Amino acid sequence: MKFYDSSAAPSPRRVRMFIAEKGLDIETIEVDIRAGEQFSDAFRALNPLCTVPVLTLDNGQHLTTTDGCRAWLEATYPDPPLLGRTAEEKGQIADLLHIIMFNGQQAISEALRNSMEAMADRGIVGPDNYVQIPELAERGRARGARFLDRLETMIGDREFIAGDIFTAADIDAFIYVTFAKWAEIEPGPAHTNIRRWYDATAARPSAAL
Amino acid sequence: MKFYDSSAAPSPRRVRMFIAEKGLDIETIEVDIRAGEQFSDAFRALNPLCTVPVLTLDNGQHLTTTDGCRAWLEATYPDPPLLGRTAEEKGQIADLLHIIMFNGQQAISEALRNSMEAMADRGIVGPDNYVQIPELAERGRARGARFLDRLETMIGDREFIAGDIFTAADIDAFIYVTFAKWAEIEPGPAHTNIRRWYDATAARPSAAL
Repeated sequence: MKFYDSSAAPSPRRVRMFIAEKGLDIETIEVDIRAGEQFSDAFRALNPLCTVPVLTLDNGQHLTTTDGCRAWLEATYPDPPLLGRTAEEKGQIADLLHIIMFNGQQAISEALRNSMEAMADRGIVGPDNYVQIPELAERGRARGARFLDRLETMIGDREFIAGDIFTAADIDAFIYVTFAKWAEIEPGPAHTNIRRWYDATAARPSAAL
Repeated sequence: MKFYDSSAAPSPRRVRMFIAEKGLDIETIEVDIRAGEQFSDAFRALNPLCTVPVLTLDNGQHLTTTDGCRAWLEATYPDPPLLGRTAEEKGQIADLLHIIMFNGQQAISEALRNSMEAMADRGIVGPDNYVQIPELAERGRARGARFLDRLETMIGDREFIAGDIFTAADIDAFIYVTFAKWAEIEPGPAHTNIRRWYDATAARPSAAL
């Protein structure tokens, strides 16, 4: 088994933290996305969509999305559960992951990819080039700010986003709140729940990876 | 248990077909999204993000995303399995669902929402208005056309997208290939695998719903 990671990107970190929370030790290979290694023939043979993370299983299967890697990991190594214990929790956490992805990850990625000089013609991740759309960067910043307001409410007075246990929802929200700083979207003084929860998450060993 | 559906929209259809394939009979309530019923106070109490589908469970919990509804349904009614039987299939199908969502659903939704007159100021789904971005509609059409080429390869000579059993990946790809016609993105003569697979899927009783 091999985990193709990239230390500079948020999506592989979602799997990296997940692996660490499971207490697993998986051989990890760094993909240098700043040098464009994800577009090499060798990497395209693993994942023609040229995205990280990729998890290659012992049977030769390549899992090429965060969702795919984590679904396999959860089914293979159920403890500790990170995607829900009961049917109700599985539904709740799948809800949270989608809401964080659509309102947080997508907004922040759009804000950055459509404005950074280093991302010229890389308006969206994947093998094909698309020009930047400045209005999309602007919309992403507006949506990203609203995401923090929503997250503040979602967390409320809970210890973790889904309730009483740490889950993949905490991983994803933590990573995208961290990543949002690159787009100058940061929790403000009113986001007291986010600040408390963020500091507690940042203190976990898995967050240092 | 209640299923809040909307016959005109693709996302609730993803849950509607899933429920039908499971052979379940769940009380269904139509939400008139053309009349803006999703923005009513009554609906916001179910789902503050104002999206369909919503599945309300007997314990009062509201599942408010396609992923959440289907994760709960799969865990509660495992037969027939639609999200994978083994860990390897669960990983594979989660991969496929993400790839279809990101490259198909997102592209086609962006093409339509950012160009249709009826969607003015509704550039993205949710409770907040955002102006349309014509360049995003254009990018969506280009990405949607590429999605069909990718789907042609993904299907290959398989009976179903994930291999030998019908899964949620078939549901989602079928719904978005159907929906893409509104954006004038349609399989061409070269898409022979899509045509064969599409016709077989369209003949399933669940596809008539």
